[in-house]
Amino acid sequence: MTDNLDQRMHFAIDLARRAGELGLKYFRDVENLTIEIKGHQDLVSDVDREVELFVRAAITAAYPDDGIVGEEHAPATGKTSYVWVIDPIDGTANFVRGIPAWCVVIACARDGETIVGVIHEASTGETFHGRLGGGAFVDGRPIRASGAKALSEGSVGTGLSNRASTEHVAVLVSMIMAEGGVFYRNASGALMLAYAAAGRLLGYVEEHMNAWDCLAGMLLVEEAGGTVLKPDPRTVLQEGTLVIAGGNNIFPKLRALCAEAFGD
Amino acid sequence: MTDNLDQRMHFAIDLARRAGELGLKYFRDVENLTIEIKGHQDLVSDVDREVELFVRAAITAAYPDDGIVGEEHAPATGKTSYVWVIDPIDGTANFVRGIPAWCVVIACARDGETIVGVIHEASTGETFHGRLGGGAFVDGRPIRASGAKALSEGSVGTGLSNRASTEHVAVLVSMIMAEGGVFYRNASGALMLAYAAAGRLLGYVEEHMNAWDCLAGMLLVEEAGGTVLKPDPRTVLQEGTLVIAGGNNIFPKLRALCAEAFGD
Repeated sequence: MTDNLDQRMHFAIDLARRAGELGLKYFRDVENLTIEIKGHQDLVSDVDREVELFVRAAITAAYPDDGIVGEEHAPATGKTSYVWVIDPIDGTANFVRGIPAWCVVIACARDGETIVGVIHEASTGETFHGRLGGGAFVDGRPIRASGAKALSEGSVGTGLSNRASTEHVAVLVSMIMAEGGVFYRNASGALMLAYAAAGRLLGYVEEHMNAWDCLAGMLLVEEAGGTVLKPDPRTVLQEGTLVIAGGNNIFPKLRALCAEAFGD
Repeated sequence: MTDNLDQRMHFAIDLARRAGELGLKYFRDVENLTIEIKGHQDLVSDVDREVELFVRAAITAAYPDDGIVGEEHAPATGKTSYVWVIDPIDGTANFVRGIPAWCVVIACARDGETIVGVIHEASTGETFHGRLGGGAFVDGRPIRASGAKALSEGSVGTGLSNRASTEHVAVLVSMIMAEGGVFYRNASGALMLAYAAAGRLLGYVEEHMNAWDCLAGMLLVEEAGGTVLKPDPRTVLQEGTLVIAGGNNIFPKLRALCAEAFGD
């Protein structure tokens, strides 16, 4: 079984890098992109669709019986217990405006549990990967979630979407600063989760994220020795989840902040 | 005189790239850095000091009679009307934690007016440069500030420091979202100003920035056809300034937000 996971992990790393190269090719010519506005902060470009088709085709060729859930196209039901959960470009708002902070996200879940997570930032070339029970890494080097005990020791990432109240985010940001902390928002939730896994941020919190944006990063944080709020495995793929993730010592504080800010 | 400016501009572009390479060498080995905490969000590493010495030595060799003002070392008084204003690593909090969003900032002022500005992001390799009256560019391609008219059309960058009230930032963030907008904070003020010049952000606002963090970016925004709040040329080098910068159409809105949030 571990072999199966390792195979899928190496496949996902390679695929994320190839998808990143494809995305990067378009990113360098971003002025000529066609962009569609789905809603507030919810943009989609031809690149999202094309990179997702590329990723899906590669998965279907390698693991034809696995299921696939992605952001831009309808889910493909599989015959195995494995489901790939993919976001071809996380941080599309950055991508379409020319900001380099975007990434390819590939997760694989088995019976609702994430077993492989890969986040690849094409602009810097960094690849974060993790496997259930196998640790978390950036470019092959082990990473650790933050050991900080107080918000004043670093920054907390957060995000916005049209699925959650902006008032809640305003309260959260205000509370982080009232505790001597700092908020961080580079507009790619998956990338900020990867940074939390690497201890670059104390943690990451967002009232609602879709599965393709958060599953890979949440596995990374756990495999890097951090703590995450466990999503409901029965609903997370369809409905998404509240995300609270960070170092072990800071997690209770992040959870308390969210309870107050989000009315959780 | 233009020749003089062009010479200094090309010198600054080349120097920023060489300084970025030096910084990058240390960034790849960031675990072994010595970091000193000057204050909240005010870190300094050996790299800041070493890269500044490298930049100062290059300026002194090429323009021995010009003045130099930098973040980490005492100002050098010059015999010409030119003063170089440098931040060896803007975004030190990112740098020391391994987050790739940091940059080298080199500006040159003449009689208090910024005439050359260069911002180089080493992790992505992008170089933004501008010359008074000569336009603004990224990697040689012309850039334009945003033409957006409403906050709902993009993101507004902002920052924090120990020199301004966090309550003011909380009000600002809340007001941006109340207008249907989005806040952005990647913890490198100079880089966000460069993004504003390139129209990637609608604009950038911060209650107080030091001269070495803001002069280059403010010139870029103006040369990219945007608008900035003009700092007082008599005090900006010593005391820094309130920064409001962005596309022409959105500037009045940014100014109104700051007046309310900062009590300006």
